[in-house]
Amino acid sequence: VVPRSEKPLLRALGGEALACPPVWLMRQAGRYLPEYRAVRAHVGGFLDLCNAPALAAEVTLQPVRRFGFDAAILFSDILVVPQALGQPLEFLEGEGPKLDPITNTAGLARLSIDGLEDRLSPVYETVRRVKAELPDGVALIGFSGAPWTLACYMAEGGGSKDFAAVKRWAYADPAGFGALVDLLTEAVIGHLSRQIVAGAEAVQLFDSWAGVLAEEAFTRYVTVPARRIAEALHARHPGVPLIGFPRGAGLMIASYADNTGVDALALDTTVPLGWAARTLTVPLQGNLDPVCLLAGGEALRNGVRAIRRAYAGRAAVFNLGHGVLPRTPPEHVAELVRVLREEIA
Amino acid sequence: VVPRSEKPLLRALGGEALACPPVWLMRQAGRYLPEYRAVRAHVGGFLDLCNAPALAAEVTLQPVRRFGFDAAILFSDILVVPQALGQPLEFLEGEGPKLDPITNTAGLARLSIDGLEDRLSPVYETVRRVKAELPDGVALIGFSGAPWTLACYMAEGGGSKDFAAVKRWAYADPAGFGALVDLLTEAVIGHLSRQIVAGAEAVQLFDSWAGVLAEEAFTRYVTVPARRIAEALHARHPGVPLIGFPRGAGLMIASYADNTGVDALALDTTVPLGWAARTLTVPLQGNLDPVCLLAGGEALRNGVRAIRRAYAGRAAVFNLGHGVLPRTPPEHVAELVRVLREEIA
Repeated sequence: VVPRSEKPLLRALGGEALACPPVWLMRQAGRYLPEYRAVRAHVGGFLDLCNAPALAAEVTLQPVRRFGFDAAILFSDILVVPQALGQPLEFLEGEGPKLDPITNTAGLARLSIDGLEDRLSPVYETVRRVKAELPDGVALIGFSGAPWTLACYMAEGGGSKDFAAVKRWAYADPAGFGALVDLLTEAVIGHLSRQIVAGAEAVQLFDSWAGVLAEEAFTRYVTVPARRIAEALHARHPGVPLIGFPRGAGLMIASYADNTGVDALALDTTVPLGWAARTLTVPLQGNLDPVCLLAGGEALRNGVRAIRRAYAGRAAVFNLGHGVLPRTPPEHVAELVRVLREEIA
Repeated sequence: VVPRSEKPLLRALGGEALACPPVWLMRQAGRYLPEYRAVRAHVGGFLDLCNAPALAAEVTLQPVRRFGFDAAILFSDILVVPQALGQPLEFLEGEGPKLDPITNTAGLARLSIDGLEDRLSPVYETVRRVKAELPDGVALIGFSGAPWTLACYMAEGGGSKDFAAVKRWAYADPAGFGALVDLLTEAVIGHLSRQIVAGAEAVQLFDSWAGVLAEEAFTRYVTVPARRIAEALHARHPGVPLIGFPRGAGLMIASYADNTGVDALALDTTVPLGWAARTLTVPLQGNLDPVCLLAGGEALRNGVRAIRRAYAGRAAVFNLGHGVLPRTPPEHVAELVRVLREEIA
């Protein structure tokens, strides 16, 4: 068995520049894999799969077995946290998540953090099962949505074009909205901590909607909560790396990196890697365009090699800039891993 | 009559720091105004309004009269260009634009630039009518969608979450996709040039989807076309400023500013204004969050004053970071203008 500290992912996240960056992909478990669709066909809905530890563990491990990734990432969903706080959630086929929206401070009365981790216990059971079956040298990553992104879904009731409901609340009643963000920060700390206790060796904080905020709001709702989460996790679980993913942060990325204390930074597709490698000091993760993976061929090979070159001599993890798209041919993923690991003249 | 060069908007775009920045708002003409809805009720669809110069001129002027803005912006739509190139377009009520998608190079045969400006002649007639009725001191702004953003709509057939169709084409067949971008660049130059001939005193290039591209693609499909457009317009119409709006450009903004030759830069809501005022040398425009305007109250007043402070001593134009949202109370817009123009102690 490869000791924890010698797993390539954990070495890279610990600051070591490896000859070839370890690789995993956001949404590496999912609909693009026939073996995933086969499991999915046996359960009712998406949330039923998230709440069935044996099946969730199986789909977590599928892409690791098929492609030889350096990490497994827990199969779950960021919205299990709002659901466990008391907000009804459903996934309608082909439509994405639907929550009964909470758009003002009075709505906070519908939420309760008491017993949250009991209600999320199937997630931790999945972590335990995956950990027990993890191939040699492969690390297990846990995750949570970040407070701002969870608040977006909770106030909008699902996806959004303009984020008018969540931002309007934040502008009109900063104290009340701040109370929601504080509650979510506490929930996220508890959720990630329990995943680590159950066996997660690194955790990623997904702030998928970080890129819609003006500067002051970004600091208040993205950076400050991430710092509180990083501080709490570092205190409870020293040595377990936290990867921050403020998607779309754009010009705010350096400020996020400098002020949160995250151990590594996941970069979305828009971040120029040359700039990032020169400017950011933490280990980096990313950032191939998922559509480049979908397209395949010469563009994919060139894209993988360009990222590998940008990371040369640097602590880094190969990943996409966003999740694997459902129509992605699995052979393209195999090609990505093959090209990444090939000898470069 | 205030001479052209003394119109506040043109002075600011020419590099002059005014005591109070001139102001206009993206989508200042539109559904949030009862007088707009009254005109709209008399025509069939949205495109019918765009193609009726007398009515389009009227709705262009409505917000200028009501709020005393420093500029009118032509009422039209960026998708009239793909339509005039030969791609069928419709706007379904409440659903946004629908185009019959063109997703590969063979589809280019459906497009023709010959006679483009004849087919767009109602737009130029609107410009002429607005110009003739423009209140004293108010400037007239023309606009076009930028080639990348137009290509997105043309390939996706409307809005998109992942831009898989347009990017897949660009990755799989860069030469063919480049031919579309070249065609669009030529069309945009012609369209903006005709608006200037008809009376537009400044023009804005809307690259609404600039923020979804990786670095190399951003340079190729956003920056290079903008540079070609700027060069052509400067050659044909010296002294007429071009405002570039690469929405969501994030870390690529400085590169866009340095390499396109646009005369001014419109900033989306996410751009930290302190950074922009220190770093970018061209006149700046933006970037209040449209949801802050929707929310109103103290947040609005604080937001307006913060932007005015950031622009102190600098050539700048007050605007939003994106368009006015349809549910915005018109009184909030009046309050924005009042607070912007109030004396600051």
